[in-house]
Order: sequence, then C-alpha cells, then structure tokens
Amino acid sequence: MEFQFSDKLREMKPSAIREIFKSLGTPGAISFAGGNPAPESFPVDAIAEISADIFKNNAAAALQYSTTEGYPKLRELVADRIKTKFSVGRDFDSTIITSGGQQGIELACKVLCNEGDTVIAENPSFIGALNAFRSLGANLVGVDMEEDGINLAALEETLKNTPNAKLLYLIPTFHNPCGTCMSYEKRVAVLALAKKYDVIIIEDNPYGELRFAGEEIPTIKSMDDEGRVVYCGSFSKILSAGMRVGFLCAHEDLVAKIVVAKQVEDVHTNIFFQMICAEFMTRYNMDEHVETIRALYRRKANRMLDALDREMPDCVKYARPEGGLFLWCTLPDHIDVSDFINRAKEQLVFVVTGKAFNCDENAGTHSFRLNYSMPSDENIDKGIRILGDIIRDMM
Amino acid sequence: MEFQFSDKLREMKPSAIREIFKSLGTPGAISFAGGNPAPESFPVDAIAEISADIFKNNAAAALQYSTTEGYPKLRELVADRIKTKFSVGRDFDSTIITSGGQQGIELACKVLCNEGDTVIAENPSFIGALNAFRSLGANLVGVDMEEDGINLAALEETLKNTPNAKLLYLIPTFHNPCGTCMSYEKRVAVLALAKKYDVIIIEDNPYGELRFAGEEIPTIKSMDDEGRVVYCGSFSKILSAGMRVGFLCAHEDLVAKIVVAKQVEDVHTNIFFQMICAEFMTRYNMDEHVETIRALYRRKANRMLDALDREMPDCVKYARPEGGLFLWCTLPDHIDVSDFINRAKEQLVFVVTGKAFNCDENAGTHSFRLNYSMPSDENIDKGIRILGDIIRDMM
Repeated sequence: MEFQFSDKLREMKPSAIREIFKSLGTPGAISFAGGNPAPESFPVDAIAEISADIFKNNAAAALQYSTTEGYPKLRELVADRIKTKFSVGRDFDSTIITSGGQQGIELACKVLCNEGDTVIAENPSFIGALNAFRSLGANLVGVDMEEDGINLAALEETLKNTPNAKLLYLIPTFHNPCGTCMSYEKRVAVLALAKKYDVIIIEDNPYGELRFAGEEIPTIKSMDDEGRVVYCGSFSKILSAGMRVGFLCAHEDLVAKIVVAKQVEDVHTNIFFQMICAEFMTRYNMDEHVETIRALYRRKANRMLDALDREMPDCVKYARPEGGLFLWCTLPDHIDVSDFINRAKEQLVFVVTGKAFNCDENAGTHSFRLNYSMPSDENIDKGIRILGDIIRDMM
Repeated sequence: MEFQFSDKLREMKPSAIREIFKSLGTPGAISFAGGNPAPESFPVDAIAEISADIFKNNAAAALQYSTTEGYPKLRELVADRIKTKFSVGRDFDSTIITSGGQQGIELACKVLCNEGDTVIAENPSFIGALNAFRSLGANLVGVDMEEDGINLAALEETLKNTPNAKLLYLIPTFHNPCGTCMSYEKRVAVLALAKKYDVIIIEDNPYGELRFAGEEIPTIKSMDDEGRVVYCGSFSKILSAGMRVGFLCAHEDLVAKIVVAKQVEDVHTNIFFQMICAEFMTRYNMDEHVETIRALYRRKANRMLDALDREMPDCVKYARPEGGLFLWCTLPDHIDVSDFINRAKEQLVFVVTGKAFNCDENAGTHSFRLNYSMPSDENIDKGIRILGDIIRDMM
C-alpha cells in the first residue's frame, strides 16, 4: 500500500554517510568516511570487570526500569566533570543523561521549536543534528564558517532577518566536519548576539575532551549567566559509542520539559551502561584514560597531516586540527568534488562529500571530510597518496 | 529566564505515575502503582555469562557505533519468533530494533502524523503512548473500552466523524490498564474498519508472551494482508526492562522512513544488549524461560484476585486477567476515586487513578489500576485488605 508520510519526514532520506557504509565491506577498501572512535580507545578490560561486578551485586537495578532523568550517581559525576573541565553548570542548571548526545540535540529542538520555526546552524555542520531539526519540521538556515568559526556579520544579518529564529546550533570545539575551533572572541560575540536576538544556543561538545594540541578555549556555556545555552555532551568518544550514553546540561526549567519529551521517546537511557560510566569514573582515573586517547589521535592526525603535506598539490586547502576526529579539505574551484569522490571510490578510497553537511541540501561544495581515528597508519599513507594522485590527474 | 516552549510540549507535564514513584521510598509503603516486571523474572546468571563472553570475544563491535536498523542477527531472531508465536510478518514487512517498545510507538506516529492529525486510542489506554502522541502535537480521541475490547459502534462513529484520523492505537492483548483482551471477532472487525476509513493501526503487544490462562487470540497483525498494521513489541517484560530493547514490524516502506526518524533520535539502540538478546535466544530456550514468568504471574494474579474476592464489597467491579501485569477496578459511582486514592496513600498503599489513562485529561473516572507483578504475596494480601476497608468505610 501507499503511505502518506508526515510533511516533516516526507522528503527525508537516509544520510549520504550511511550509504557509503554499505560499500565498506569490499576487501581492500580504505575508509576516511566514518566518524567512529578508534576501537583501541575503548577500555574493554575495565568495562568487562565493572560489568561482572554489577551483575554480581546490583543486577536487579541494572536490568529494571529506571528514571527518565538518569542514574543519580552518574548525573552527579557528569555535572562535576563538566564543571571542572569546561566550567559548565550554574545554580539554575540541571544535568540529565540522554541516549547519546544526539538525543539531547533532538529533544532540545522538540521542546523549543514549532514546525516552521527557524534553526540557524553553522554551514557546513553535523548531519545528525541537521537531520534532527529537519525531522521536527524546522526551517534550517546555514551561516558560513570561517577558519575561526561562524561568520559573525552573516550571523547577525541572518538573526536580523529571521524573526522566527528560535535556536542557534553550534559545535564550537573541534567542529564536525571542519575540525576547527571557534575563537574565544567569537564565542563571546555569538552569545551576545543570541541575547540580543533572543535565541537559545545548543552548544554541542562531543569532542571537547579530545584536545591534542593548542590551548583550551572556554565553552560558550561557561559564559552563560541566564540559562540561554543548552550544553550537549557524550561518552561516545571517550568510553564507548555503542552504549549510547550522553548528557545534557541546561536551565532546570528547560530540562524539566526535556525530561517529559524524553520519557515518551525511550522512557530512559539503558541503565546498565549508566552504571558502567559511573563506576568507571569512580574506580579509574578518567583524565589518564582520556590522555591515552588524545595521544592516539594526536599521532593519527599528524600522520594524516604529514601525508597531506607530502601528497597534496598546493591548491588543496586544509586546516590543521588541534583535536577531534576530522580534517576538512577544499579543492580548487575547477575540480568537481563529485567526480573526485567517484574516482576515489573506484580505487576503494572513501571520503564524505561536503554536500552532505550543507544546511541547504541543494547547495554545491568544493570540500570533503577526512576521518583519521579509524584508518590504520598504513591506510592513511596509502589512501592519501591515492587521493593526491587523483587530484593531480584532474588539475 | 522565561522559555517559550513549542505548542506541542507546552502543556505537557510529568505523568501522574512518575509523581507517585517519588512517595514509594517511604518505609512500609505498598505499591500497586508501578508497571515493572518482577525482578526475579530477569535471567541474571545467563545475562552475566553472555556478557562476559561478549567482552571477551566481541568487545570492539559491542562498544562501537552500529546500524540504526539493529543488530542483524537479532532482527532475524525476532522476526522468526514473532512469526512463530504470533503469525506476525509477511513478505512486505520488515523488522527492526527500537529503544524499547515505547520508541516504536513514538516513531510510527512521527512519520505518519502531522500536528493536528487525529490519533484514535482505546479509552483508557497506556499513558506512555498517549503522551507520545501528545508530544507530537496529535489530536487525541478516545473510544471507550468494553470487557471484550474497544466499543465497535463508537469506533465507527468516531472514524466517520474524524476525516483527519491517521492512526488507531490498540493494545489488544492484556491491555494496559484494563488487563483484558480484545475478542477475535472485534480484532477482525477493527481491521476491516481501519481499511474502510483508511487509517493505520499500531498494535502494541508488550505483554503478548505473558498469557497464563485462556486461549491465544490471533494478533491483528497476523490478519494484515496489505501492511496496514504496525506491530510493536519488547524484551522489557521477558528479559529486562532496563536494557531498553524493543522491536517493530511493519511494511518495509514504512520501516524505511521510521529508520530515518530513529537515526536522528538516538542513532541506534545500544548494541551490547542487542547482542545479549540474540545470544540468549540462541543459547537458551526462550519458551522455557517465558514459561517460568507465566507461572510466576499466574500465581501473583491469582493471589491478588483471591484477595479482591475476599476483601472487596460486591459493588467493586474487576475483570479477571488471563495475562499481563494489571488489574482494573471500578468503584460505584458514589465513591470519589480521588478521595479513595488519597486515603489509601495516607495508609501507604499506592494505586494509579484511572484518570491518568484517559485520552481526555479533563474527563473523570471511577476506576484505578492495580499491578501484581511487583508486590510480595504478603503485601498483596495486606494492601488489598486496606483498600477494601477504605472502600467499605466510604460506602
């Protein structure tokens, strides 16, 4: 039979990145397309040990329904950590557990935006968040990125001309897909603009713990003295992505409404892994663990940057990330990115087109995203060499 | 600061049931208010053993991002089981994993209903589903329940008078809160009405495995020859509620859209517990395990029915459930249910008012819900005696 889908979902399709994953099973394939954390970053032995203890001592609670807000002990530990690390959380804020950072983003939009309301995002931006806004019927408007973050003049112009703008979605630290950070000055200015035009900011910070070079920059939430910023984070990049445990810190009035919306989505986040996170943070030194991940990604990023410096012609532009998982490359205007990506695919090297991250799905691109957390050192060298050869051949 | 919430969420409040849970910590409290499975029904040793094996042999996959549709092996095992047990799933159907049955219900509504579209539900009905529909801005219309399920004449009248009805939400087997089953004849008739008025049915079947008396009645989905029925189920009542693993079987075109909507809510359901479910179904005999739960709830339900038969004056009406977790009691018109519930609360016996399950939140009630899976035998006897005394005192 023919289904009549809701207006908000009718045009939505599986993401371009998902489609790429289907090709990855091919033997010899080199993928720079994913966004997965390196599997060697998971503290498997510690998680296995904690897991055995939970089933021995606390099984009934770990397998039973739990509260929507999350495991109280984990909420406290997360609130403490984001306060210590990122100065996030004031008296009026509350911290809850979400099913990945993704759910926090989606819920914040759901409780604040009617269909047709505008969400402003950096352009390009994280496809999962953009699709969450689209799935709620939001009108999506992109503001172009510069090397030090969103273009401020363009942002103010957009805010001025968009009276129904409700939300401003930002990834200020190790942006996905750009890999760069918003400068301190821009963070201050963006918060001031949000106040002036009365929009709420979602500060998405899944990569914040992964700085491997440069200096920390204060989070926007750390400057939020009125509850205008919803801060989303996750254990996906520091403990395990598959367990789906994230968190959200926002004004308690907003959190109360988000809890109501979360309850009807999944009742609560799986409680066993909330206990695992809490126990890991209690028994082990999270800072030491995170330091090993930073060292790993520092090495991987440098390996990829060295390969790019060696293999890419000067006309290919890329910024040097100081953390996170991604590198963003821009080709000269006369090279068609789709042709380039197809030729790379023929040689079994997979990258994601910049088009996938555009707020306007019909806009073009000259860029593509590279991930360095998953491929082996050898595949980084080999894959980047192949990409460089293709580009030189297309010049 | 003051937040402007979306129209769909503005009026929504935490559910009455959640509020009750806050009082349950009081020493000596007897709760018939919850809907939790009995903790002794969780196969803890088996889950602990499988868990250890997964961390030993397959940790990287169990902790990494996974596919939105769910773990392929579990999808196959679930499809096989619901086919065998409930004749659910035809060539045009597809089965995916959801974060509890709750997420399947919410997603089905999200992809099919615009704000303002009408969802028709049995009245009373499961509060989690009703709130999911409300959170998506749906217009909720209730059709009264009879002892053998929804009132058919009233349903047709409602369908006739509601041109924007898109969905019909039903719990035909061991209804929550009523505890009763829709008759076979009504199931046939309801599907015919859904065809005639072109609405999609959500058949919610979280308790289907828990029959402890009487004869199986075919699911509505088993009669669905065109893809009009979305079937939602869960491992919550047979393995563990806290792990948040449910499933959904529907026409593949509808499932494709639901997968897009699920991806932006939580990317995927936690993969570790999907593996646990698959391994449990492979290594252990699920039928034998379910039989132990049925025996447990048969005993519990009979204990509560015996106590009700003994303690309740004749004017209190209740049906005798053949499965599931709940018993539904109706007081005579002259007894105010709120007064009764407050007096019970003063004596530390907690039940849920029927009002909580009404589609129209302003409608009154003469009923309350009792749960028999959680309280001890002693508390069943004591609590029902207290309730009976209060009612007699109010007559």
